[in-house]
Amino acid sequence: MNPAAAPAERLPLPGPLPNALQLTADGKLRHLLTVEGLSRELLTEILDNAESFANMNEKAVKKVPLLRGKTVVNLFFEASTRTRTTFELAAKRLSADVLNINVSTSAAVKGESLLDTLRNLEAMNVDMFVVRHQQSGAAHFMARHVEPGISVLNAGDGRHAHPTQALLDMFTIRRFKGDFTRLKVAIVGDILHSRVARSQIHALNILQTGEVRVVAPRSLLPAHVADLGVHVFHNLEQGLRDVDVVIMLRLQRERMEHAHLPSEHEYFQLFGLTRRRLHLATPGCLVMHPGPANRGVEIDSAVADGAQSVILQQVTFGIAVRMAVMSMVMGVRSA
Amino acid sequence: MNPAAAPAERLPLPGPLPNALQLTADGKLRHLLTVEGLSRELLTEILDNAESFANMNEKAVKKVPLLRGKTVVNLFFEASTRTRTTFELAAKRLSADVLNINVSTSAAVKGESLLDTLRNLEAMNVDMFVVRHQQSGAAHFMARHVEPGISVLNAGDGRHAHPTQALLDMFTIRRFKGDFTRLKVAIVGDILHSRVARSQIHALNILQTGEVRVVAPRSLLPAHVADLGVHVFHNLEQGLRDVDVVIMLRLQRERMEHAHLPSEHEYFQLFGLTRRRLHLATPGCLVMHPGPANRGVEIDSAVADGAQSVILQQVTFGIAVRMAVMSMVMGVRSA
Amino acid sequence: MNPAAAPAERLPLPGPLPNALQLTADGKLRHLLTVEGLSRELLTEILDNAESFANMNEKAVKKVPLLRGKTVVNLFFEASTRTRTTFELAAKRLSADVLNINVSTSAAVKGESLLDTLRNLEAMNVDMFVVRHQQSGAAHFMARHVEPGISVLNAGDGRHAHPTQALLDMFTIRRFKGDFTRLKVAIVGDILHSRVARSQIHALNILQTGEVRVVAPRSLLPAHVADLGVHVFHNLEQGLRDVDVVIMLRLQRERMEHAHLPSEHEYFQLFGLTRRRLHLATPGCLVMHPGPANRGVEIDSAVADGAQSVILQQVTFGIAVRMAVMSMVMGVRSA
Repeated sequence: MNPAAAPAERLPLPGPLPNALQLTADGKLRHLLTVEGLSRELLTEILDNAESFANMNEKAVKKVPLLRGKTVVNLFFEASTRTRTTFELAAKRLSADVLNINVSTSAAVKGESLLDTLRNLEAMNVDMFVVRHQQSGAAHFMARHVEPGISVLNAGDGRHAHPTQALLDMFTIRRFKGDFTRLKVAIVGDILHSRVARSQIHALNILQTGEVRVVAPRSLLPAHVADLGVHVFHNLEQGLRDVDVVIMLRLQRERMEHAHLPSEHEYFQLFGLTRRRLHLATPGCLVMHPGPANRGVEIDSAVADGAQSVILQQVTFGIAVRMAVMSMVMGVRSA
Repeated sequence: MNPAAAPAERLPLPGPLPNALQLTADGKLRHLLTVEGLSRELLTEILDNAESFANMNEKAVKKVPLLRGKTVVNLFFEASTRTRTTFELAAKRLSADVLNINVSTSAAVKGESLLDTLRNLEAMNVDMFVVRHQQSGAAHFMARHVEPGISVLNAGDGRHAHPTQALLDMFTIRRFKGDFTRLKVAIVGDILHSRVARSQIHALNILQTGEVRVVAPRSLLPAHVADLGVHVFHNLEQGLRDVDVVIMLRLQRERMEHAHLPSEHEYFQLFGLTRRRLHLATPGCLVMHPGPANRGVEIDSAVADGAQSVILQQVTFGIAVRMAVMSMVMGVRSA
Repeated sequence: MNPAAAPAERLPLPGPLPNALQLTADGKLRHLLTVEGLSRELLTEILDNAESFANMNEKAVKKVPLLRGKTVVNLFFEASTRTRTTFELAAKRLSADVLNINVSTSAAVKGESLLDTLRNLEAMNVDMFVVRHQQSGAAHFMARHVEPGISVLNAGDGRHAHPTQALLDMFTIRRFKGDFTRLKVAIVGDILHSRVARSQIHALNILQTGEVRVVAPRSLLPAHVADLGVHVFHNLEQGLRDVDVVIMLRLQRERMEHAHLPSEHEYFQLFGLTRRRLHLATPGCLVMHPGPANRGVEIDSAVADGAQSVILQQVTFGIAVRMAVMSMVMGVRSA
C-alpha cells in the first residue's frame, strides 16, 4: 500500500468486540489498540503500574532491564517526532532494542503493502510494534495479523484512537485530582477530527467521571456525539462553568476551512482559553493539552504557562504510562 | 565524491584475488566483500555459526554480549531501510553500538569523498563498516583502505555482489533441503542487473550444488553468463522442470525499458511464477525471493504466500547469518 | 519558531558573565556554552580527563557505564552528520541513552518555539542537551531556561562558538606539542564567519599560548579582531613564518560572494596551504583543520594527507574530549 495514494479510510474498522483482539483469554492486555471496551480494573492497573515508572524517571539512573533482549519497532506511517520520541525513550529505559522506521521514506516507496511490511518485520523476531498511521483501523489490522507473542500498540490511527495519550491524561488527572467520580471534565475544540478526544471520552466514562463535556462549534462535532455519553456545549463560557479539568485540543489549521472557520483570530475569540474564562471553572481547575499548543489560537500563552497548567506534567507522565503499557503487554511487571 | 554526480562504475573492480583482501593470512574471515573465491569450508563455517544465532533469535532474550563496546557503522550511500534494519538488529543483538549514516543526506552534500568519509569514521575508532553503495567495488575500495582491526561488510555494491543475501539464501536452502550436491536450483528474472544473482551463483557453485540454472529473457542476461557455471534457459516452463529450489528475482521496474520489456503484464505472462508453473518443479520445491516481491509481476501472490514459500524464513535467517558474519570478522564466536 | 524564517541573530547574546551560567557556585562545569571566560585550570582539567577516554577508545571494549540510565538529546536545528555522530558516539560509549532530534524535520514544522521544544523534552526527564543552532546564543538561551540538573552543551551556535571543537584542538596541540606558552599558532581563513575560530582564539589565550595569529583577507576578518589578543596578517607567507601550529578553516563557498572573492582558484593562490608554504613554518609544524576540508581551496591534498597533518587525530580526540565534557557536567569522573 502506498499511503500517499491510499484513500483515507480504506482499512476496515474493527467489529464490536475489539477486546477479543486486545486482551488475552484470561483478560490480560496483549495489544493496546483502543481504550474503548477496557474495564475500569484494567485501566486502573495500567495507571497503578505507571506510578512506579513515574517515580523511577525522577531518579539518577532511569533504566530497568524489564525488556532487555526485546525488540521494539516504532513503525510510523505519519511523521510525529514528539510521539515517536516518547515511545523510543520508554522502550530504551526498559532496556529494549529500538528500531525507528519511517515508512513514508522507505518500503512504501517500493510499493510494499502494510501486510508485507508487517510480515517482514515480524520475521525478524521483533516483539512489539508501536504503529502510527493516517488510516483508522491500521493498528487493529496489524493486531489481527501478527503472530502470537508480538504486541501492537496504537500510537494514533486516523481519526480513530490514540489510547496512550488518553491514558496519560487519566494518569495526570488522577495524580492531581484523585477520584474521578466527583469530577467535571470539559474537552474543548476540534472533537470531529480528534482521535485524542475519542479516546479521552471513552477513558473518562470507563473511569466513571462525574460529568464529561464536549465544547465545540457545531462544525467541529461529529454527528450523534451525545451518544458517547457526554454533555454538549457550543458556548465555551457555559461549558467551562464549574469544571475541575479542561482539556484543550489542538486546532489543525489545515482543517479550518472545511469547518467554515473564518480565521484563527475569530476562533480564539469564541473558543480560546483565556485567564478570564478559566475563572468560570473551579478555582483549582487543571488545564491540559496534548500538545503542541497553538498559542493564541486555542489557548492563551498566559494560561498554557500558568499555575493551573499541567501540560508539561502530561509529557512527563506519558513516558511512565508508555513504560507501563509496554511492560504489561510483554508480560512483565515493574518490581 | 558526490555519489549523485559520479559515473556509475567509477571505482575500479578488484583484481583476481579478492581473498587476499577478505581473508587473514591464516584463512579467517576479515571482511566480507564477495562470496566469490571463498572456500566451501568457510561458507559452511558461517552457516554453522548462524545456526546458533537462529536458535537464539527464537528466545525471549535475544541478546548476547559478543560485540559489547564495539562500534558498527551502517554506511548507506543508497537508501534501503530493509537491509539496513537487518544489519542494525544483528549488531544490536550482539550488543554493539550502532551508528546509522545515510550519506546521501550528509557529508556528500559538502563534497566529501568516499575516502574522506572512511578516514573520518575510522578516526572515531569504529570497528566495522556495513556499506551499501551504488558503485560496484565500493566495499573493496574501503577494505583496501581501512586500518588493521576494522572490518568491512558489503551490503550491496552496484551490480557486483550482495554476499550476506546469498549466504542467508544458502542457509535457508540447507535448513530445508540439506545436502546441496543433490539439488537443482533455478534463479529466475533479471540476472543482468542483479548483484544478488551473482552472489547466489557463486555460493551455489562453491557448495557444489547439483545443478544451477538461470532463467531469463536474453535482454536480462549478462554476456557469457554460461561461463559462470550455470545452465541457461529462456523459457520458464523448461527452466522449472524438476528443480528443488526456485529463486525469483525482483524486477527493477525502472530497468524494464532498457531491457525492451513491453509491460509488467507481459513479463508476468512469460516469466511470472504461478501455481500452475510451480507444479513443473519437484513437489517440495522451495520458493524464494530476496524481497520485496512485486506481486503480479515476477510472482503470483498465491505462490509468494503459499505453502512452499520460504520468503519470510529468508528474512528470519538473514538476521542470524549477519550476526554470524559480524561475530566472525570481529574474531569472536558464539558459545 | 520556524528556523528557516527566523532572522539570523534574533536570540540575544549573553551578557558579560557567561560563567555565571555555565559554572556551578563552586566553579564546576555545569553547561559548556563557550570557552570564553573559562579558567586555565578548568580547561586543563577537561583536557586531563579526556586523556583517559582517549586511551579507552583504543581498547577492544570502548564502553564505560558512567552515564548509564542518563538520557542525552542531540537537538540539531542545523544538519551536521559529522558533529552529531561524534556526540552520539561519545554518549553511547558512556552508556547513555541517546535521542537524535533533527528539528528542521519535526516540531518546527508545527510552529513550535525553541522554548516549547526545550520544555517538552525536559519534561521527559532528559539529562543533557547537545544543541546545534544557526542562531548565535541559542545554547545560552537554553541554558538560562533549563531546569536544575539538566546540562546544555553547545555544538555550534551561529557565528558565536563551538567550544568542543576548540577543546579538541587544544587537546591535539597539547598531545603533540606540550607547553602552550612556547608556541606560535596561526589560524588561517574565514575568521569572520567562523564560530570555530572564535572559540579557538579564546582557548589559546586562556592556555597562555606564546603567540596567536590570524591570517585572512580583510573581507574575511571581523572588525576589531586585534582586540581579541591576536596578531593579524593579510599575507599567508608572512603569517606562517616560524609558527608551530597552523589551523586552516573551511571556506564556506556560499559566503565567498559576500566576501568579494572572485573564485576558489584565486583564493587558493593567495591563502591555500601548500607544501612550499608550509616550509615557512617550523619543521615540525602541525597542520590542523576542523573538517571537512575543501581540498584545492584552502588546503592542498598533499598537505592535508601529509606527515605533518593531524586532521584525523583531531577527529579521534574529539570523541574523548566530548566524553570528558559529558561526564564532567553530569558530575561523574572517569576512574
